[in-house]
Amino acid sequence: MPEKTVTAAVLIIGNEVLSGRTQDSNVQYLAQGLNDLGVRLKEVRVVPDVEDDIVAAVNALRQRFDYLFTTGGIGPTHDDMTSACIAKAFGLALLRHPKAEVLLRDRYKPEDITEARLKMAETPEGASLIENPVSVAPGYRVENVFVLAGVPRIMQAMFDSLKGDLVGGAPVLSHSTDAYVPEGVVAGPLGELQKAFPDVDIGSYPFVRSERLGTCLVARSPDQSRLDVVADAIEALVRDLAGEPNKPKEAKDS
Amino acid sequence: MPEKTVTAAVLIIGNEVLSGRTQDSNVQYLAQGLNDLGVRLKEVRVVPDVEDDIVAAVNALRQRFDYLFTTGGIGPTHDDMTSACIAKAFGLALLRHPKAEVLLRDRYKPEDITEARLKMAETPEGASLIENPVSVAPGYRVENVFVLAGVPRIMQAMFDSLKGDLVGGAPVLSHSTDAYVPEGVVAGPLGELQKAFPDVDIGSYPFVRSERLGTCLVARSPDQSRLDVVADAIEALVRDLAGEPNKPKEAKDS
Repeated sequence: MPEKTVTAAVLIIGNEVLSGRTQDSNVQYLAQGLNDLGVRLKEVRVVPDVEDDIVAAVNALRQRFDYLFTTGGIGPTHDDMTSACIAKAFGLALLRHPKAEVLLRDRYKPEDITEARLKMAETPEGASLIENPVSVAPGYRVENVFVLAGVPRIMQAMFDSLKGDLVGGAPVLSHSTDAYVPEGVVAGPLGELQKAFPDVDIGSYPFVRSERLGTCLVARSPDQSRLDVVADAIEALVRDLAGEPNKPKEAKDS
Repeated sequence: MPEKTVTAAVLIIGNEVLSGRTQDSNVQYLAQGLNDLGVRLKEVRVVPDVEDDIVAAVNALRQRFDYLFTTGGIGPTHDDMTSACIAKAFGLALLRHPKAEVLLRDRYKPEDITEARLKMAETPEGASLIENPVSVAPGYRVENVFVLAGVPRIMQAMFDSLKGDLVGGAPVLSHSTDAYVPEGVVAGPLGELQKAFPDVDIGSYPFVRSERLGTCLVARSPDQSRLDVVADAIEALVRDLAGEPNKPKEAKDS
């Protein structure tokens, strides 16, 4: 239990999320995947395709958290500037990675090897590649920073192939209880419960289901026995307030 | 055209996005709504329910951008700490707002007015309220910071009711062209085009449709005449590369 908490941040690079053109879905995938590995996602930032903004965010986040994952901006076009920014953030040269070049030359016919495509082989000096089983052009790692594609299918495949390199702490376990009680009614006793168990994180999320107002109460802890105690207390509290059996929903959605 | 660019940031407050429990959809709604008003969303951050993190992010973003919108953390429970953090960020007292209290007392029967519910009437001193037509408990504005609910339906209603208070610049117009050409092929000439028209923002986004690989090319500018010139150039470029008519997709998705 008094194990080190391992933390991570995600940096989404791309005008398309900030313009509202694209709905990001990478954060949720990474959040859940990291949680399963015992790594807590602590901050997300979305920045535009602007060098100074990207470099500043990379440096702020890689220094503050154990791991940083970037998504987007590693394609072949002029607006793909992530690799140049990562190199700048670390003060490293941007070089054509020999192994990445081989991968790309194996994939395309010689006449289809454009300068733009070879740009996808450029990484900061000393980067180690992350496999891309979907479209070949790899991601890579520099120290604690993992540089991934923005296209969800590719990002997910890259994340799955790098998982083994992450060292996490105890995964956070969770227990959810759906209660047909408005948040404003459950709030008082729930706050008391949180005070009594400061080491277990208790959250409450209102919902409307079949036109009934309710609150989903979620307890989170890396310690199963503490979680069980709080989960029982939450279910007792809900029974008191609702005067009806609640529907506990087991773990899963942390 | 040489009008001031008006900028904004969004700060999402809540463990539920960082744990992967909830998929955020507020960013896209705000991004599109702001763009229509001529306000450019320049940064998004997601931070946990931790006072120091929230205060630091509020102060960093409100000083850097013309507007800051926060979502989440203004409900009745112990994990709703946004208002206390906004007050702290501005160095203002957190007070029960008389008008907000009246709204809540009008909504609930006297016996249902809990301390927790009255917490939803607390705002930093001098805040002006933002109407909540869905569930009454209001959002509010302090200087250039707009504090909104996290539940999308409520957040959207609040944003729609505050829109009139925002002063934007020229809205960014956009033109999209779908081309059945891989990104690696279009990249070279597209980069040349971007160099020739540095004032028009050109983005490229790969897609797979009916098992065909393509690239969506998006030009963005607040200046219709410049946009038209670049849109024509993009369509000519696509015609050259694809040897077939492309399908232009008119504006809308900026």
